[in-house]
Amino acid sequence: MHLDAQLQTLCERIPGPAEAAAAAARQRLDSLTKPRHSLGQLESLLVRLSASTSVVCPTVNAPAVLLAAADHGVANEGVSAYPQVVTVQMVQNFLIGGAAINALAAEAGARIILVDAGVAGDLPNHPGLLRLGIRRGSGNIAREPAMHPDEARQAMLAGAQLVESAYTQSPGLDMLLLADMGIANTTPTAALTSAYTGAAPAETVGRGTGIDDAMLEQKRRVVTMALQRCGNPDRTTPALTLLSELGGLEIAVLAGATLAAAAQRIPILLDGYITTSAALVAAGLAPSVTTHLFASHRSAEPGHRLALEHLGLTVDAGAGPLLQLDLRLGEGSGAALALPLILSATRLMRNMATFGEAGVSDRDT
Amino acid sequence: MHLDAQLQTLCERIPGPAEAAAAAARQRLDSLTKPRHSLGQLESLLVRLSASTSVVCPTVNAPAVLLAAADHGVANEGVSAYPQVVTVQMVQNFLIGGAAINALAAEAGARIILVDAGVAGDLPNHPGLLRLGIRRGSGNIAREPAMHPDEARQAMLAGAQLVESAYTQSPGLDMLLLADMGIANTTPTAALTSAYTGAAPAETVGRGTGIDDAMLEQKRRVVTMALQRCGNPDRTTPALTLLSELGGLEIAVLAGATLAAAAQRIPILLDGYITTSAALVAAGLAPSVTTHLFASHRSAEPGHRLALEHLGLTVDAGAGPLLQLDLRLGEGSGAALALPLILSATRLMRNMATFGEAGVSDRDT
Repeated sequence: MHLDAQLQTLCERIPGPAEAAAAAARQRLDSLTKPRHSLGQLESLLVRLSASTSVVCPTVNAPAVLLAAADHGVANEGVSAYPQVVTVQMVQNFLIGGAAINALAAEAGARIILVDAGVAGDLPNHPGLLRLGIRRGSGNIAREPAMHPDEARQAMLAGAQLVESAYTQSPGLDMLLLADMGIANTTPTAALTSAYTGAAPAETVGRGTGIDDAMLEQKRRVVTMALQRCGNPDRTTPALTLLSELGGLEIAVLAGATLAAAAQRIPILLDGYITTSAALVAAGLAPSVTTHLFASHRSAEPGHRLALEHLGLTVDAGAGPLLQLDLRLGEGSGAALALPLILSATRLMRNMATFGEAGVSDRDT
Repeated sequence: MHLDAQLQTLCERIPGPAEAAAAAARQRLDSLTKPRHSLGQLESLLVRLSASTSVVCPTVNAPAVLLAAADHGVANEGVSAYPQVVTVQMVQNFLIGGAAINALAAEAGARIILVDAGVAGDLPNHPGLLRLGIRRGSGNIAREPAMHPDEARQAMLAGAQLVESAYTQSPGLDMLLLADMGIANTTPTAALTSAYTGAAPAETVGRGTGIDDAMLEQKRRVVTMALQRCGNPDRTTPALTLLSELGGLEIAVLAGATLAAAAQRIPILLDGYITTSAALVAAGLAPSVTTHLFASHRSAEPGHRLALEHLGLTVDAGAGPLLQLDLRLGEGSGAALALPLILSATRLMRNMATFGEAGVSDRDT
């Protein structure tokens, strides 16, 4: 199963870390009027931002939330606390500005790019809603593939193109926040996370928006069925196979967007568990994508930690999630909440005086 | 040892939680278009903000960083990686806008109220610097009291008056961020934390701005000496005694400011270990102050966790620190980094649609 040429080219273009910029960032951090390393995890964040962007003092002036919504046939298996119609209703809520992500993106100064990646219900035509028209909802992964590989390719390409048009048009794009909406979408995410990390469904399946013990058991059975149906795939299985067998349309769009952003050295700020599974797929296609991934938060879903670890997004690696607030909302809410921390960190890097400039005694001088 | 009448009145005026506002906030959170409790710790933050302010949807339009600087005689005992002159130099850096807190406060939209609470060196006259003139640096707590009780009272009253004039003058004050600068000030903080929590100096003394193993041992000995000198006081010792024996002038100013803010239902956002020790003193004088305390972060200093726990600022109590980024900078940097999270949370509370308004199906309807 092959990627098409366009996606293949994208994967090959993704640069690794800009070592010179990262070293210069480290040096600048040590020259600023503060005890060395006293900004803790923000210092490694800044070094990683320089490694991603190849800029010593990067700015974030045009961040955008790519909010992809889709439905999931597996919702029929009774894995979510909410009926599938809520996906449509929430897209309408995004359009009227009433959802959490509307408030958070406004507060953080990020625009929202809202895309119907494959919602099952009827949505109005609206200038604020991009529609892909690939299919209405994915298949029920417990019993059939989520989508045809051609559909997965199409959705990934659409995601990549959304990013490409965002950064070529005003106001540009210098940080991509991934965001999802889709009733039942922690189920495909758990399946993908089991495949990539090797962890059993008992470890990757959580309560999503808040299911009870009986539904949790059912959700674990469903993920086990889905994995068995396609022969218990693992990280050696081609990413496009995993995506089309176990994924979802919003996950495919976000995976493609991740590749396109990484290819342009645009840092990608993950939200929660679903967007992280999109990053698993993207990193499965192009491992160097991880240079450009940033973890906004660690959610209440137990599998999220496993997925972040698989991507190397840990505190020990200097790439830990910025927030741990037991969020489990999705919609890009965690990413939008963490964005101001990144803006603050970049401002420190640009605006603080050095010991020399301020006439402050450094400990070693 | 008595407080003067003015401070006593302040302590008596501090209100407990506004239960009705807190209950209404909880109800509103459950009506917003999101899965219940899906905002995790931000929901308990919002309920606590309502309990503090007595407003269901509070706004933060006029936050201020009260940045108090002072020197400490105990710096002579070799407990800091930096020479004492750095306190003066950093105050000058604050005045030219070159320090971390300048960048972070600007990013978060908070103004800085800079006060020389007792710096030992010479500082220029500057319209951006308030000077108390109580004394130049505190005593060496290993060998003598930090200050006379009258000086402690004076410094507390000055802090209270700073807050009072801030909220009575334009643009007002609706959130107080506590901030400190003072070479060696983790040493008095460790001594105060040992006294309040009962933890040994081995647990309350940390590496501050980054001392080595030998200095860490020395710092523990110094804190042990300080505690023994005044008879190993504990939480039953009058707060004013603890403050004057073991504290510092910036700690006293911040403790007084905390009392004045709490008396006006102005939420107080703590920074790191030093500001939390000021809150220990304030809560020692008036336990209901804790209703109005908010933990911005948990720092790299091991004693900070103990001090936060003593104040009930834990995740289990729905009052955990918002950030854990291994910061150890002080200056209010952690508070300023956390402020945007609070602004985001209050915006969610004000701007999100309810299930009814947005026509979204709630799980129970």
